[in-house]
Amino acid sequence: MDLVEIVRRLELQDLYTGYAACLDSDALERWPDFFTEDCAYRITSAENYEAGLPLGLIYATSKNMLKDRVTALRQANIYEPQRYRHLVAGMQIERDECDTLDVTANFLVVRTMQDGAMTLFAAGRYIDRVVRSDGGWRFTGKLVILDSRQIDTLLALPL
Amino acid sequence: MDLVEIVRRLELQDLYTGYAACLDSDALERWPDFFTEDCAYRITSAENYEAGLPLGLIYATSKNMLKDRVTALRQANIYEPQRYRHLVAGMQIERDECDTLDVTANFLVVRTMQDGAMTLFAAGRYIDRVVRSDGGWRFTGKLVILDSRQIDTLLALPL
Amino acid sequence: MDLVEIVRRLELQDLYTGYAACLDSDALERWPDFFTEDCAYRITSAENYEAGLPLGLIYATSKNMLKDRVTALRQANIYEPQRYRHLVAGMQIERDECDTLDVTANFLVVRTMQDGAMTLFAAGRYIDRVVRSDGGWRFTGKLVILDSRQIDTLLALPL
Repeated sequence: MDLVEIVRRLELQDLYTGYAACLDSDALERWPDFFTEDCAYRITSAENYEAGLPLGLIYATSKNMLKDRVTALRQANIYEPQRYRHLVAGMQIERDECDTLDVTANFLVVRTMQDGAMTLFAAGRYIDRVVRSDGGWRFTGKLVILDSRQIDTLLALPL
Repeated sequence: MDLVEIVRRLELQDLYTGYAACLDSDALERWPDFFTEDCAYRITSAENYEAGLPLGLIYATSKNMLKDRVTALRQANIYEPQRYRHLVAGMQIERDECDTLDVTANFLVVRTMQDGAMTLFAAGRYIDRVVRSDGGWRFTGKLVILDSRQIDTLLALPL
Repeated sequence: MDLVEIVRRLELQDLYTGYAACLDSDALERWPDFFTEDCAYRITSAENYEAGLPLGLIYATSKNMLKDRVTALRQANIYEPQRYRHLVAGMQIERDECDTLDVTANFLVVRTMQDGAMTLFAAGRYIDRVVRSDGGWRFTGKLVILDSRQIDTLLALPL
């Protein structure tokens, strides 16, 4: 591991940290900027993923589709009283091909309701592909694999 | 990012890790040593923080006030049967001005009661200012922003 | 902290990340490979640990015993409908003696049941000894200290 690899690794940690901070601060309008124009974004369950089922609950094949999704979320949710807190740990670079990397990480999302009740909202694993572009690292593929099958309530929030 | 920056970043991670380990091991008497003499420490809710309300549930403006707080906690809690476990992730250096840095991080605290019941105790974000002093990095400002408004039980523990 | 130390630290993070990923993906047959032949592995409660009680719920003194344990787990659990997700944070190198290191870290394990219910399964601290061998870093000692005393259900899973 040389200095170039160390720097890259820390930059990738910043990518995940920035991504989580964007979602936690409800700055959804900035969320698509973490992706490339022709990205693939998918949320699915571990069960479906292991069974090889291609589609998930949420599926997008471009940054524009992610933007549309944010618009829809904003229109649907007049008032959003919950708060989300992401804990991302265990980032691993799985495959390294020039400036395209396959990266995985574990995530846990805790939701706090307006009355203070805290619940485990989601846990799972990111299987991502990232590329280096002018503005730094971006996701060209993000596969969000949830440990749970019950993901209907997730419609309210990108993960 | 050069070697100096990398080392600094790892040192700051050590600061947060040591801070969490201090609290988790109930070594409260060492807790004030993570701060400078003239530090500002505050616990508040995200709601109050976003509304610009200046005061929080807990507020201290010096290391001596933190020491007083530990003394009060020790006198009040003859026996403390809970255990706390901090998970700190997503540390980010937000602003860098010589040896004064603004740093943020996410935290999650899990509480285990004497009978084994585990609960999500607190989740939120640190917004901190750290400075380098003779003995390493210290907090000169620590703002603990809780996702929840219900923080009365937190009186028992620094965060 | 020089480049050698930085690399070592990142390698150790990879060790913990790989360890957690192995357990989360139910690849238990690979789990013993994270240990040296003559390793010591123990799961105990914080209460027992602090009282100086030597034995824990699970105790193994060689890699072969860990392999036996995996075999027993596979035979006992015909079908395992839960999923586990490890969050490991706050790794610290406590003692450094050539290529033998004492390392600690915090862990949280979230369990997701088949019906989607998520629970806090375990929280605690690893107190480990790692050595560098041909294939990279391995655990020669792993002490898993649980915050909770109620650990009977843990029999199903290495931690």
